[in-house]
Amino acid sequence: MRIGILGTGTVGQTFGTRLRNLDHEVVLGARESGNPRAVEWAEAHAARCGTFAEAVADADLVINATAGQYAVDALEMAGGNPALAGKVVLDLSNPLDFSSGDLRLSVCNTDSVGEQIQRAFPDARIVKSLNTVNGSVMVEPSLVPGQHTIFVAGNDPEAKQVVIGLLGELGWVRANVLDLGGIEASRGMEMYMPLWVSILRALDGNLAFNINVVQG
Amino acid sequence: MRIGILGTGTVGQTFGTRLRNLDHEVVLGARESGNPRAVEWAEAHAARCGTFAEAVADADLVINATAGQYAVDALEMAGGNPALAGKVVLDLSNPLDFSSGDLRLSVCNTDSVGEQIQRAFPDARIVKSLNTVNGSVMVEPSLVPGQHTIFVAGNDPEAKQVVIGLLGELGWVRANVLDLGGIEASRGMEMYMPLWVSILRALDGNLAFNINVVQG
Repeated sequence: MRIGILGTGTVGQTFGTRLRNLDHEVVLGARESGNPRAVEWAEAHAARCGTFAEAVADADLVINATAGQYAVDALEMAGGNPALAGKVVLDLSNPLDFSSGDLRLSVCNTDSVGEQIQRAFPDARIVKSLNTVNGSVMVEPSLVPGQHTIFVAGNDPEAKQVVIGLLGELGWVRANVLDLGGIEASRGMEMYMPLWVSILRALDGNLAFNINVVQG
Repeated sequence: MRIGILGTGTVGQTFGTRLRNLDHEVVLGARESGNPRAVEWAEAHAARCGTFAEAVADADLVINATAGQYAVDALEMAGGNPALAGKVVLDLSNPLDFSSGDLRLSVCNTDSVGEQIQRAFPDARIVKSLNTVNGSVMVEPSLVPGQHTIFVAGNDPEAKQVVIGLLGELGWVRANVLDLGGIEASRGMEMYMPLWVSILRALDGNLAFNINVVQG
């Protein structure tokens, strides 16, 4: 697949590297063309880089790896609803705001980033997934031993199947993928973040963790 | 132990019945003396019932099983800080508000019920636990097979040990108890509720589920 990644941070680069290793074409998109991090990464991984719009232009799949509070802006800069129409957009983001010193979510309870971007770009097919684990675990679930769960949410069943296929390529076992329904389930997936951070602290900063849903 | 339970709903009664089966003395506390649900339960389980204040008066351990948005009020009616001073208060509650049709939390992101009641009653020793599972699982963790995690949070280490001891009596394996630190971790434990509700729907309403924290 041709995959456009928005965001040149750790998650964007980790994802891009893994997708290159799986032989996908990758365009790493930045706010501005010529972003040094993106150029360096692209050269090292036989990939391309460019603006958000260039990353989206020919993409079969778009991955939002920007910070949640900037996701609508980034997708708007990428060309907005006309550019995204019909495209599957995998949203990895969380609305984390540490500016107060403590974790705050910049949106929660009555809305979420997943819902915001689906509303802003109604013809895009938004799928929320992977935001409940660290970037390293997203692309290498075997870093966490045994069974553990990854959630997906989105309004378009076909788009979810595309993402579930990609999850399989990354190493996620199909039985551990839990479909939570429509994009409104993003709310719970994002609001899990404060518990995620508390668990991370209780595990002395070990990022290689996840939760497994177990039922009787 | 003498245990005072505030709240005569399903969680309060389920907990009371289980504690009676473990041979603890139980006083089920209601907003008003003579609450018919409480009287009926007490007669059936060789226990006592009374007002919130009567439930707290001689208790070695207080359990808050009221709805989260009424927890401060209920503990105030129970006698407030003087009555609660030094007492271990296990807070099971969640600030669930379904009045809009959808789930909303009545407090979240910058505060939580656990923190509210610790602030309101500074000499009480508040411990948050068990709010992340259904009442039936709280008192019978074997309803969910295999390993699964229960969280505790609170500022007083001794009080947490009292609660961890009670968790053991209920059947929670010590290795599955994860201490998240101070009472501020209540925030994440309560904000997990929207994800909990989404998981419940994805499991077709099977309440006998929980999450297991797995690390690499």
